[in-house]
Amino acid sequence: MLILASTSARRREMFARLGLDFQALDAGVDEHVDTFASPADYVLTLAKRKAAAVIGRFSPADLVVAADTVVSCDGVIFGKPRDAADAHAMLAKLSGRGHEVLTAFAIGHGGALFAEAVTTEVFFRPLSAEEIDGYIRREAPFDKAGGYGIQESAGFFVSRISGSFDNVVGLPLAQLELALRRVFGLSLLDYQKKA
Amino acid sequence: MLILASTSARRREMFARLGLDFQALDAGVDEHVDTFASPADYVLTLAKRKAAAVIGRFSPADLVVAADTVVSCDGVIFGKPRDAADAHAMLAKLSGRGHEVLTAFAIGHGGALFAEAVTTEVFFRPLSAEEIDGYIRREAPFDKAGGYGIQESAGFFVSRISGSFDNVVGLPLAQLELALRRVFGLSLLDYQKKA
Repeated sequence: MLILASTSARRREMFARLGLDFQALDAGVDEHVDTFASPADYVLTLAKRKAAAVIGRFSPADLVVAADTVVSCDGVIFGKPRDAADAHAMLAKLSGRGHEVLTAFAIGHGGALFAEAVTTEVFFRPLSAEEIDGYIRREAPFDKAGGYGIQESAGFFVSRISGSFDNVVGLPLAQLELALRRVFGLSLLDYQKKA
Repeated sequence: MLILASTSARRREMFARLGLDFQALDAGVDEHVDTFASPADYVLTLAKRKAAAVIGRFSPADLVVAADTVVSCDGVIFGKPRDAADAHAMLAKLSGRGHEVLTAFAIGHGGALFAEAVTTEVFFRPLSAEEIDGYIRREAPFDKAGGYGIQESAGFFVSRISGSFDNVVGLPLAQLELALRRVFGLSLLDYQKKA
């Protein structure tokens, strides 16, 4: 059985799009991290915490995948915005420059836990205050790290990226697949629904 | 009025996602290009041909946008695959390496025609013959240059990109917006539906 320990609709859609047969659930962990050495350390801590929280509910033969995503800009981690003013401040800060999006995924299987962090550079074209406000009104991006969702109309803000696109959406599928093969001898495709 | 001279469902979805009020139509041009200096020259020729074919049907005050997208690998242009075997050959060729996706957009407005080509590098992880076949069965990518659509489950093949993601989908929205502003003093946001 494949378990996705995530409340993110985007991550669930990514698994569904691949035709995977999986169970999604909320890991229900405290998402506060007291101290961390780097943004990568931060997302690795949370992804591992989420996987560890659910792994005991399943058989070691099952495959548990958890993930955490943040936006990092000038060493500051942007989580989910509190309100429209906070989202506006985040997007204004990201306007006309590059930032990093980090996702860590954690894989639990056979009593072992493996985690990896993937970084993508994202560059925004210059944004006007009006278009930021229009975007926040239209999309209400309060459940998204950094206040934007690259897979919806905020893609319009992005002039280019360097790295995995899926990683910005919330789960770097190709890297997850390669880790599954390398570390566990498994493939996501083993969990595709039978035709 | 904003006119999108394209039959591509992906391009229409991109405009719709931005909340634009636009009319989409088929430029209905011959897509054969006899000679071309480069892949960029090829897509520029077709994008301009598509815009030129429809521009006379509208007022010069209207804004016409056309585009063409190809995959280029080792100097060979991959268009839409003829059949499953052709799609398989294209994807096998792209496996485990990088290739380029080029989109040219052409803008017609006020009697002028402006065109620009944008290139994105896309890297595929190694693919097995079985997963290529499964993908072709599931997605039937016969209307997509290179035999894949990055916005659906072929995203699973892509380990990273360098450049615009929208460009790979079929229309580099940020670059289109910047060209509209720079060349014509216009913005796509001028064509958003009134709330």
